Amino acid sequence: MTLRPPRREAPSDVLRDDLLAAAIITILLIPQSLAYALLAGLPPQVGLYASFLPLIAYALLGTSQVMAVGPAAVPSLMTAQMLGAVLPQFPGVAPEAAALVLAAEVGLLLAAAALLRLDALTALLSMPVLQGFVAGACLSIVATQAPVLVGSSARGTSLPEVLQRWWQAELPWQGWTAAFGLAALAALLLVRWRGRRWLGRWLPPVQAALLTKMAPLAVVGLAIAASLAWEVAQHGVRTVGALPRIGLPLAWPLTDPALWRALLPSAGVLALVTAVESLAVAESLGLKRGERIVPRRELAGLAAANLAAAVSSGQPVAGGLSRSAVAFDAGTRTRWAGLYVALMMAVAALVLAGPLAALPRAVLAAIIGLAAWSLIDWRPFRQAWHYDRGEFVVMAGVAALTLLVNVEKALVVGVAVSIALLLKRTARPHVARIGRVPGTEHYRNVDRHQVECTPGVLALRIDESLLFTNARQLPSEVVPQLQPDTRRVVLLMSPVNTIDFSGLEALEALDALLAERAIALDLAEIKGPVQDRLQTLGWPQHFRGRIFLSLHQAMQAGPAAAD
Amino acid sequence: MTLRPPRREAPSDVLRDDLLAAAIITILLIPQSLAYALLAGLPPQVGLYASFLPLIAYALLGTSQVMAVGPAAVPSLMTAQMLGAVLPQFPGVAPEAAALVLAAEVGLLLAAAALLRLDALTALLSMPVLQGFVAGACLSIVATQAPVLVGSSARGTSLPEVLQRWWQAELPWQGWTAAFGLAALAALLLVRWRGRRWLGRWLPPVQAALLTKMAPLAVVGLAIAASLAWEVAQHGVRTVGALPRIGLPLAWPLTDPALWRALLPSAGVLALVTAVESLAVAESLGLKRGERIVPRRELAGLAAANLAAAVSSGQPVAGGLSRSAVAFDAGTRTRWAGLYVALMMAVAALVLAGPLAALPRAVLAAIIGLAAWSLIDWRPFRQAWHYDRGEFVVMAGVAALTLLVNVEKALVVGVAVSIALLLKRTARPHVARIGRVPGTEHYRNVDRHQVECTPGVLALRIDESLLFTNARQLPSEVVPQLQPDTRRVVLLMSPVNTIDFSGLEALEALDALLAERAIALDLAEIKGPVQDRLQTLGWPQHFRGRIFLSLHQAMQAGPAAAD
Repeated sequence: MTLRPPRREAPSDVLRDDLLAAAIITILLIPQSLAYALLAGLPPQVGLYASFLPLIAYALLGTSQVMAVGPAAVPSLMTAQMLGAVLPQFPGVAPEAAALVLAAEVGLLLAAAALLRLDALTALLSMPVLQGFVAGACLSIVATQAPVLVGSSARGTSLPEVLQRWWQAELPWQGWTAAFGLAALAALLLVRWRGRRWLGRWLPPVQAALLTKMAPLAVVGLAIAASLAWEVAQHGVRTVGALPRIGLPLAWPLTDPALWRALLPSAGVLALVTAVESLAVAESLGLKRGERIVPRRELAGLAAANLAAAVSSGQPVAGGLSRSAVAFDAGTRTRWAGLYVALMMAVAALVLAGPLAALPRAVLAAIIGLAAWSLIDWRPFRQAWHYDRGEFVVMAGVAALTLLVNVEKALVVGVAVSIALLLKRTARPHVARIGRVPGTEHYRNVDRHQVECTPGVLALRIDESLLFTNARQLPSEVVPQLQPDTRRVVLLMSPVNTIDFSGLEALEALDALLAERAIALDLAEIKGPVQDRLQTLGWPQHFRGRIFLSLHQAMQAGPAAAD
Repeated sequence: MTLRPPRREAPSDVLRDDLLAAAIITILLIPQSLAYALLAGLPPQVGLYASFLPLIAYALLGTSQVMAVGPAAVPSLMTAQMLGAVLPQFPGVAPEAAALVLAAEVGLLLAAAALLRLDALTALLSMPVLQGFVAGACLSIVATQAPVLVGSSARGTSLPEVLQRWWQAELPWQGWTAAFGLAALAALLLVRWRGRRWLGRWLPPVQAALLTKMAPLAVVGLAIAASLAWEVAQHGVRTVGALPRIGLPLAWPLTDPALWRALLPSAGVLALVTAVESLAVAESLGLKRGERIVPRRELAGLAAANLAAAVSSGQPVAGGLSRSAVAFDAGTRTRWAGLYVALMMAVAALVLAGPLAALPRAVLAAIIGLAAWSLIDWRPFRQAWHYDRGEFVVMAGVAALTLLVNVEKALVVGVAVSIALLLKRTARPHVARIGRVPGTEHYRNVDRHQVECTPGVLALRIDESLLFTNARQLPSEVVPQLQPDTRRVVLLMSPVNTIDFSGLEALEALDALLAERAIALDLAEIKGPVQDRLQTLGWPQHFRGRIFLSLHQAMQAGPAAAD
């Protein structure tokens, strides 16, 4: 159901575009896939396995035409942290076996969410939580890659762990490795800063931009050449090493119930992050192309992809922002491009396994660290600081917790605090006395606008739905506004989007309270759905006061004839 | 800060009224205090101790003139359940010693809440949760009293426990005890059904009502007389037994840190319930007398009362509905009446300790069971069923959990589900296309009202604040409303009570989306506080569209001159 119908073109054109895009994506994703597997604490070839069957599964069920599914930066970091927390209790289980269990659980949870229409749960990750989380996770990734970059033996999945192990490490850095890592980093930075402008002199901007994105591949190629030429593995540089032939190692994940139980809470958090990240990517890219994304279908696609990863020696997968942006720029036209990428990955892995073995891991660390760094966006922090100090604190707090403790705790705290802030907001509504803007039928706050008031009538606007969070305070909000001459209170109900059962009791209490003081209570501009609900109790009849279509009519009507 | 100034009267009148009321309250409260202590699983005299110092402490700090603090029905049941859950781990600790720790913790938590201005937390117990909880707790009290009434040896703190122990009990009932219990129950029921009408023939209604409230005392007196005359204790009837002389046994509660830690979560729940029940009582009675309640002062008073109970061999105390209603009817004038009650309780306990020893416990069970039964209000259940099926489910679910599991779990689940319902409500806002009600400047839903629309202009009302719960869906709510000829969208912002950071991003995304389709987006009737916040980002300037004071002005203005 696209809103702008896609241009009609020959199917062969679409196929050609998709195949071309797939080739570009494949070339770009190979180093990324290896790197994310390493980030997840798994053997590098797992990243390649996770880029084959899962892509096919997503292409069959998903709706996005450009979202590229596969190992992604933040989910890979989370996988590493989650396995690191659980595996010490299971000494016999290899990380790559546990990763399959995690992928299977994520897939099953996403499938359940799709079946039970739980896609609305993704709203739990508010913008401040999400931005803080992404910033903290990307900083953590940078931290985990720093020792790899300079050849230290220190490894860890969070900043404090990395720092502590680096401090205690026998080998804080290693000359040859650091040379490779820092050279790769310098080259990538140089291309990023200058590449587009230099290439732009000879090429059209789109092609120049795409070519600069190929920089990681060029760096990988050069690094392999240098590594082979100087035989660096003999100088202590850790390389990717020989990959086993890709052979679709189909197998069921482990069925140890204790392991499944231990990983389940982590899988829940990972499934939520996977859904949120992937839907955000699909929707933002979808909007640009006038595509309509069906969240439930997306969840089903992601579920299938993770289940596929679980039976093909992969790792948990998601729709990644960077890889999808690549697909978008490369010009994919249908989601079958994912299928072609999968096939090309398989072929490429077969062909390239030999040369990739010589690639120093430090080069992958440079690629992945820089990719993570460029995912961090500080602008929302600045905006939130000005817009809402409370939300800024959430954002910064989640970032700090993600960086210093771990992703799961940060997200749980962030979601809880976001909900608390929302409740607090509804608990303390803004209340305005309103009067008529001269010459109109419009009524505004007497403190902000030049308005006319009717003597003896108090027109009030309570800027919130009547909910349990504020119900108990309703009378104490209205009473201080009463003037000695007030004989009638008119509540403008246009900001009242819903009245829950507690709010209903509060409104009745207010009515009774005003009745004791011989003050009439009238309501104006009750919305249709709210009035429907009130009518189920026969309430507008039972209610003492009158109900007006508009506030202006209420004010014109004057007091009730006989009261 | 009373709104209606109290009538000026001679201080001696006020003192006389307060003393008279205090005498009435004292007489009524003696059996109740004994009964609630037994309900809490404590020796009966604890109820008397808890009715002395805590009342004085509350009178010094609280603000309500009629709220009567002391042992109350629901908190006593909660005390029994909480001690029953924790004490098996502390074999050496007597229940009355643990009750002091619980009271101390409740006092400290309430003091912290008063200092940190956390009184808004009481809003967490929404009306459905509170009503369900009170109904479930009162039914549980009835269940716990049933075996006592007929002289069974079975005891328990919840319905399943009582039923199971009753089933296994060696002594399912005991003739003499049952005779006393059922006779007392019958007498109380008779007075309740007929008492007011009979007495009303000879007395003015207020005095008749007050006299019927004395029925429990009359029943107690008769029961003591009968018990002494027939020497029933020799026939196996359990009586209250000799009370130790009241001697203000001042002492610090136990300081075992493990016990304090084990009781702390329960104390948190009990403090919340104490605060909610007491504030509700103080506010509802305060409203009737034009008294202004200061929630923080109330919390401070309740904190002091519980701390006083903790150092004087009492039990956790609260402002009870039934005892406060008694104080209200008896005509207390200042909160010093509580002080007089405290002193009279001490004297009365001294004088009455002898006769009370002969009182059969079954009579107290009849009083307490009937008091609990009459606190149950089924009307809200019926109303909620019609008003909101989701809230009815919360209410019934909390009642069932309270009755069948325990109070703590029921409250935690109830609060969580209430918050989830609120979030769900904000997540799926009602969206209305609106048009002008002919002859007015008022705009309403085109589906409900006969209205005039302007061709090419889509006027929309989204009935919710723009929050993280609905932000991600904003574009997908607006886009389906677009018509092929739509060139301009005007959003009516009067239902938008707040825009959080996520909502802001969504509004920007919507603006960008419509810009791509060459559709203008204008906003009307943005509230002052919302616009203030937007201005901190310089946003109304940066925003592409125009902002109008009223929707009518926006519709009159037509499209922007040059776009």
